[in-house]
Amino acid sequence: MRIGVFGTGQLARMMALVAPRLGMRCEVFGPDESPCAADVALHVKGDLADDAALENFASRCDVLTYELEHLPVDALRAACTTTSIYPSLDALAVAQDRLLEKELFQELQIPTMRFHALDEKEPKPEIEPSFYPARLKTRHCGYDGKGQHQVTHAGNLERAWAALERAPSILEQQCDFERELSLIAVRDRKGTIACYPLVENQHQEGILRVTTAPAPALSEELQKQAESYARRILERFDYVGVLAVEFFWDGSQLIANELAPRVHNSGHWSMDGAYCCQFEQHLRAITGLPLGSVSTRGVTTMTNLIGVLPDLNELAVQPRSIIHLYGKAARPGRKLGHINQLV
Amino acid sequence: MRIGVFGTGQLARMMALVAPRLGMRCEVFGPDESPCAADVALHVKGDLADDAALENFASRCDVLTYELEHLPVDALRAACTTTSIYPSLDALAVAQDRLLEKELFQELQIPTMRFHALDEKEPKPEIEPSFYPARLKTRHCGYDGKGQHQVTHAGNLERAWAALERAPSILEQQCDFERELSLIAVRDRKGTIACYPLVENQHQEGILRVTTAPAPALSEELQKQAESYARRILERFDYVGVLAVEFFWDGSQLIANELAPRVHNSGHWSMDGAYCCQFEQHLRAITGLPLGSVSTRGVTTMTNLIGVLPDLNELAVQPRSIIHLYGKAARPGRKLGHINQLV
Repeated sequence: MRIGVFGTGQLARMMALVAPRLGMRCEVFGPDESPCAADVALHVKGDLADDAALENFASRCDVLTYELEHLPVDALRAACTTTSIYPSLDALAVAQDRLLEKELFQELQIPTMRFHALDEKEPKPEIEPSFYPARLKTRHCGYDGKGQHQVTHAGNLERAWAALERAPSILEQQCDFERELSLIAVRDRKGTIACYPLVENQHQEGILRVTTAPAPALSEELQKQAESYARRILERFDYVGVLAVEFFWDGSQLIANELAPRVHNSGHWSMDGAYCCQFEQHLRAITGLPLGSVSTRGVTTMTNLIGVLPDLNELAVQPRSIIHLYGKAARPGRKLGHINQLV
Repeated sequence: MRIGVFGTGQLARMMALVAPRLGMRCEVFGPDESPCAADVALHVKGDLADDAALENFASRCDVLTYELEHLPVDALRAACTTTSIYPSLDALAVAQDRLLEKELFQELQIPTMRFHALDEKEPKPEIEPSFYPARLKTRHCGYDGKGQHQVTHAGNLERAWAALERAPSILEQQCDFERELSLIAVRDRKGTIACYPLVENQHQEGILRVTTAPAPALSEELQKQAESYARRILERFDYVGVLAVEFFWDGSQLIANELAPRVHNSGHWSMDGAYCCQFEQHLRAITGLPLGSVSTRGVTTMTNLIGVLPDLNELAVQPRSIIHLYGKAARPGRKLGHINQLV
């Protein structure tokens, strides 16, 4: 079974390292010269804007998936005619656009932050002063805190929007949250859904630093609520594969922040802390296998290694600490690996 | 760090799947056209009898190791002048020869079966009738029960030896054992030694079928005894890497049967049942990193998939069951994968 993956980063790399155990092989597609997934999978070098290259790659694989969201949805739809691609490109299109994403949450009655859309082609929305403080985000192409600005009051909005080059954006009401949680869910081809326990995430400068799995003091009720929300999204798209949903917890309810139609950094703990990890679940789902167990093996703390790699000798002496390096060159803000610390 | 592995089977494959997590890459050397390790590592195709090919391969790697015992020790010694090879080729030479192996056990005061050497060039040994029943084994190239014959009494010896083409052999006194146990030990470059708990093995037709880790009802005393024996072997060779020692347990003592200077089938449970698996321990040891934890994560049963591969859909629904396929074509008696069942 040949799995084609659009994207060549660490998510593709880790998927490719799981695939052989299941008798599968990953091939990865992307423009970089020697991306980190190329160490462990056949790399088909090609530009995502090259329709013919997309089609060639699609036709040589048995099933297709993707590890990043910045992909040309229409071109992929045209390229993947004979080979199935999962998750649904409709879900990808929504995940690419913060406005569609928020509208989806509203439509599915999943609590989310109040927001206003900003678009040069549309009339300016009327925003009451009490709406602030807020956060202005471009609709497209934001990640790890990029393309965002804090807007404390109405008088700052124009300047913030100008800093985003007046790109189509949304202004989200600031959410005073106590905790950041996320849910990794998976749905197979037959419609069976499984969800790992909610995990708690700590971000710094917009980048995930630490995930604790399961989230401390997790109630059954909260878990059920999160699963119900994930289920609505999964069923809306006849979704196949892993889905991540990020929530804020404001002390009384879960507030959906964003979704990622792919394996997700906040699910990396599952590589050592669950009986079946998110990468295997994703591979199982998209190839038509039944899902694996989402049960945890104790408590796991996942810590990202960002920007600089600690000395491997020092990492190696930490007991019950599993090292996952991505084979990437050090660079400020770059995710170079993670450590799963098992309690 | 580029790790060169002589051999291209499933042991090399599993080592190659662990290496990237540690920022290492394996390259595998062997004559087969498309061996199973080539799915996951760069395959340098070459004949083990081709000294120049051995040397070329050795010189392109940062450190060398091997995954099988049928290797030309002298040629390897000549090839590995500038690049270190671990474990010690002296240990490999002993493991290749059942007579040297038994003599080593004797020398190190490790209990083993009584035996007589048979060699056409030597005078026939005098063997008292009470020595039988016994097992005749060729000194070289036996594995998985091949090159062996049962000898119930003196009158059968000549015929049995003839069936082995009168190759240099040893006649081992039959051991009435209750259990088969093995110890996976590892020693790093600084001389630190770590041992997993003894495991219990069940063989059928000379092939390992099931390993239970730790061995049920394992006493601290027995573990200490086994570790003491492993330590003698490891220190004898200034050994670096993973060593497997197979024992019989006759109800009162451990009796050493054989050693394997490499990662070992009876250590596969550690991939899911320990905090650091045997493949990672081996890589850590040979690259100069400190050893990882040998603590277990509950009880694991490893079952080999031999000859025929069960339907993947059926394997996939077993809860807490981790699938490890080797990407090999089915063939009677062939190891095609294993399942780690976690209790």
